[in-house]
Amino acid sequence: MALTVGVIGAGQLARMMIPAAVNLGIELKVLAEADGMSAELAAVSVGDYRDLPTVLAFAKTVDVLTFDHEHVPQEILRELVREGIIVHPGPDALLYAQDKLLMREKLAELGLPIPDWARITDAAGLADFLQAHGGRAVVKTARGGYDGKGVRVVSHEHDVDDWFLALAEDGNDGALLVEELVHFSRELAQVVARRPNGEIAVWPVVETVQKDGVCAEVIAPAPQSAGRLADVATDIAVAVAVGIGVTGVLAVELFQTTDERLLINELAMRPHNSGHWSIDGSTTSQFEQHLRAVLDLPLGATGARDPWTVMVNIFGGPASGSLGDRYAGAFAQHPLVKVHNYGKASRPGRKVGHVTVGGDDLDEVAYQARATAQLFQDTAPINE
Amino acid sequence: MALTVGVIGAGQLARMMIPAAVNLGIELKVLAEADGMSAELAAVSVGDYRDLPTVLAFAKTVDVLTFDHEHVPQEILRELVREGIIVHPGPDALLYAQDKLLMREKLAELGLPIPDWARITDAAGLADFLQAHGGRAVVKTARGGYDGKGVRVVSHEHDVDDWFLALAEDGNDGALLVEELVHFSRELAQVVARRPNGEIAVWPVVETVQKDGVCAEVIAPAPQSAGRLADVATDIAVAVAVGIGVTGVLAVELFQTTDERLLINELAMRPHNSGHWSIDGSTTSQFEQHLRAVLDLPLGATGARDPWTVMVNIFGGPASGSLGDRYAGAFAQHPLVKVHNYGKASRPGRKVGHVTVGGDDLDEVAYQARATAQLFQDTAPINE
Repeated sequence: MALTVGVIGAGQLARMMIPAAVNLGIELKVLAEADGMSAELAAVSVGDYRDLPTVLAFAKTVDVLTFDHEHVPQEILRELVREGIIVHPGPDALLYAQDKLLMREKLAELGLPIPDWARITDAAGLADFLQAHGGRAVVKTARGGYDGKGVRVVSHEHDVDDWFLALAEDGNDGALLVEELVHFSRELAQVVARRPNGEIAVWPVVETVQKDGVCAEVIAPAPQSAGRLADVATDIAVAVAVGIGVTGVLAVELFQTTDERLLINELAMRPHNSGHWSIDGSTTSQFEQHLRAVLDLPLGATGARDPWTVMVNIFGGPASGSLGDRYAGAFAQHPLVKVHNYGKASRPGRKVGHVTVGGDDLDEVAYQARATAQLFQDTAPINE
Repeated sequence: MALTVGVIGAGQLARMMIPAAVNLGIELKVLAEADGMSAELAAVSVGDYRDLPTVLAFAKTVDVLTFDHEHVPQEILRELVREGIIVHPGPDALLYAQDKLLMREKLAELGLPIPDWARITDAAGLADFLQAHGGRAVVKTARGGYDGKGVRVVSHEHDVDDWFLALAEDGNDGALLVEELVHFSRELAQVVARRPNGEIAVWPVVETVQKDGVCAEVIAPAPQSAGRLADVATDIAVAVAVGIGVTGVLAVELFQTTDERLLINELAMRPHNSGHWSIDGSTTSQFEQHLRAVLDLPLGATGARDPWTVMVNIFGGPASGSLGDRYAGAFAQHPLVKVHNYGKASRPGRKVGHVTVGGDDLDEVAYQARATAQLFQDTAPINE
């Protein structure tokens, strides 16, 4: 009998689980928010992930439930567990992916390296934090932010009055997270996978290049990361996975500060953009590993297949010319490049695909990846 | 607008096109012989590929039509072309995959190296051939054979009287193919892809190990194949692709004779078991390449990703224990191995999956692949 994994959400992360599921003969079922989503090739039900009967009916058709995103409400997750549904990651872990304030509290409790932070509920609190941190800081909404949304760099106590007002109107005793503006030389990400039985697999630490708060490019492994830097990144991510009890794939975004510390920036408890390189670049992709982990099967080897792998996101999609014309041009110039097209409608700034190239020479690999991605987008170049 | 490829047939070859199609955002539609076939995850219509209206209606929903098998009748293929359907490979090429006698005639006309052969219609003809070839020969039905079926080693003129009788009853002036029993040291396969515009891509020549007339194992590249041997294999396969006008993937099975000639054994005008290693072992898999070729898109790089890749077929499928138990055992022992499960019902001797391992040490890679495949089957070991 086939193993069956249910995925809540049908975006590109669910979509990229399909090849891994097809290879392994795992049945993948997806609960999509709407018709025509990225993962629609899998067996799709359409329904609201905030509606318990919908999610429960879906969950009862699968062996294990997992996620394309972290937005399923806690009360639904907990009711699923009460009903005997196997859910990975579980609600206790997902809580920290859903609420940045709880995440910071938990990471502080675990003694893990994080930026200075505070919970603030009004301009006076922000003023105090700014005063103590050189007059600038980052304010984040505790919930609902992603890809740079819900994040604001501030230098004045009234810079997020609109958010305070919204919290007050909500009346849920909400608060904002304020963090020191970290001086970093670069951003890294450490992706790991953890099974319910405790087994952990660790990919090489990668460098992530952001543009406008969104991941634009990933270099695997991160240049100059051999030795202790990689060990520290691994230790941090494993400590998070174990300390929070994450099951499945966990991505830990890290700042490498100008004074050479690694500080945790964000967590994602699912396959993550910083791990897309692993589809073509590692023996086991993060998508196959996630399926293995949530099914509590032994994890696969996570070594890199080439000395260097570079992944570049495609934004905004093919806006002029047919997809066939784009492919004709890109494939003719770059026969080594692997192209991933999420089948999503194009909107400026939206991630609609990525490309990956592996090889021995980082400059060459990065050039090919960047040049190919460029051929699929009409927006301004990623690397101006 | 998505590019759409239609596949006639829904076996494992169509199934293994799905991951490539998902990655590239190509829509794959499959005309299946029945419900519950291996490739059912793709958008499936069920219908008879021998029925023109069924095939034509299906073909009109896609940009290009291709095949999981070579059994679509010529009269249907030719009518599709008359109706303006783009068909790759086309009927003129497929003819030679459908009829071994025509194939031998064509290869002889092209001056390509093949075993001695003759067209025979009765026991007297077979007697003559046996007389001239040391008393033993191989007789093949011209049509319908695969995986060792329709092939018989004979030493007596009456050893295929049943086939002669069947041909006489058909009344179609049919004949059998008789070939010399080639003394070969090993079997090789050269897989290539060719676009309608003429571009050709060539994977490394591989060694194939047969058991009971069925491919059991593939080693890529074939040991001791560097240099002239690889060049000759490439030259033969390219000459076949060009001479016959093949579009898409072409596999040329070769004998390496004890006197060091390469002779063409069989042709397959589709992705082939001898190319499955390329999914995990080459930059471009034969399935992605086939989609690119039939869409007349530039072909991808075909280099091997590791010094050695070994693919071992799984026969008979998980016959005892759950799939989850099999995976638990196999993954725990062999974290480097890539497992491919075709989702087919298990029958003794039926190919239900394969495993692939890549690495630097052939003995180690072969051991891991064989040992893992063994864990998925209850039948006798492949390498006794």
